[in-house]
Amino acid sequence: MTIIHSSPATEAALEHFNVKNATAIQVGDLYFFSGLTAIDLVTFEISEADVGTQARITLENFRLILKDLGLSLDHVVKVNAQLTDVTEFAAWNEVFLDTFEAPYPCRTTVGAPLVVGNIEVEIVAASEPRR
Amino acid sequence: MTIIHSSPATEAALEHFNVKNATAIQVGDLYFFSGLTAIDLVTFEISEADVGTQARITLENFRLILKDLGLSLDHVVKVNAQLTDVTEFAAWNEVFLDTFEAPYPCRTTVGAPLVVGNIEVEIVAASEPRR
Amino acid sequence: MTIIHSSPATEAALEHFNVKNATAIQVGDLYFFSGLTAIDLVTFEISEADVGTQARITLENFRLILKDLGLSLDHVVKVNAQLTDVTEFAAWNEVFLDTFEAPYPCRTTVGAPLVVGNIEVEIVAASEPRR
Repeated sequence: MTIIHSSPATEAALEHFNVKNATAIQVGDLYFFSGLTAIDLVTFEISEADVGTQARITLENFRLILKDLGLSLDHVVKVNAQLTDVTEFAAWNEVFLDTFEAPYPCRTTVGAPLVVGNIEVEIVAASEPRR
Repeated sequence: MTIIHSSPATEAALEHFNVKNATAIQVGDLYFFSGLTAIDLVTFEISEADVGTQARITLENFRLILKDLGLSLDHVVKVNAQLTDVTEFAAWNEVFLDTFEAPYPCRTTVGAPLVVGNIEVEIVAASEPRR
Repeated sequence: MTIIHSSPATEAALEHFNVKNATAIQVGDLYFFSGLTAIDLVTFEISEADVGTQARITLENFRLILKDLGLSLDHVVKVNAQLTDVTEFAAWNEVFLDTFEAPYPCRTTVGAPLVVGNIEVEIVAASEPRR
């Protein structure tokens, strides 16, 4: 097991928000991640933009974290997205299709009230890439 | 890693709805799946029946997909169900108990607004069966 | 695969509530668990206390179950919490930080209508501890 409390990309933001939970934990060939939302990792601002923009920021944060772990978005196996307004699925879907490349990971999207922001994304990754 | 974009059972429906995410991804002894809802895999109609019927259709879809992968509902380890009306738990529970056989998989059920339909089910399966 | 339908700690409560799903299933180095809520494992009462107290009871239930499996809260990799009122995140966060010890597990918290109670927690654990 390898516990990644923070990676270079997230360290300052996690300290700013006093986030104690791990960013990711590796068990064998799988990496579990904490849910992320659209926080600017440099300015620590929580995006109040449209949900599509928030989705881009959130996935970009995962890209940076994955890179710090020697991985990429190609290593993502499963994506769970929660939207405060599930009728905005199309905007989220567009970002999902833009950001990941085929063959795509598994995905589930549902609606949920969130602690901050309008989209929360959680991933599971593997040590082997999809492509 | 093995990526199952679609299986024979789901291929036509995924194409019809232009679904790009994988149906399932295998990593070692585990299979991760995308969430499913009560879509008729032949007519592509989204069921508007009661939630119990929708639950039966959804689990039947998983049964077909699992069969395409050489697995069965007996290989399911974890079931996550989201209901648009969580007070309908009893109807979902009845279908869960009818469809799976003891020893049952793990399960979590919560309420959530959904993109389509009144129940969304997500599973994790293993290469070894429960029984 | 090892299926834990119930552990000594939960056996009476699961029978009382006629819960059929497994408490936990082990696949290799990972343990998947069913979602738990704040049920008194002895009196079978569902707590109607504040969400912080409900969170403590729920995590204490996981501690007892994990102990029955030869594990502890230190083996938890991932925590998924659902709150009926997501604005109560601070109360849940306090209990999370009190109950687990650093390095903390991964965590995602969202809001959701629940079948019973005001918090539902689901975990994934590993055979190797975080510390």
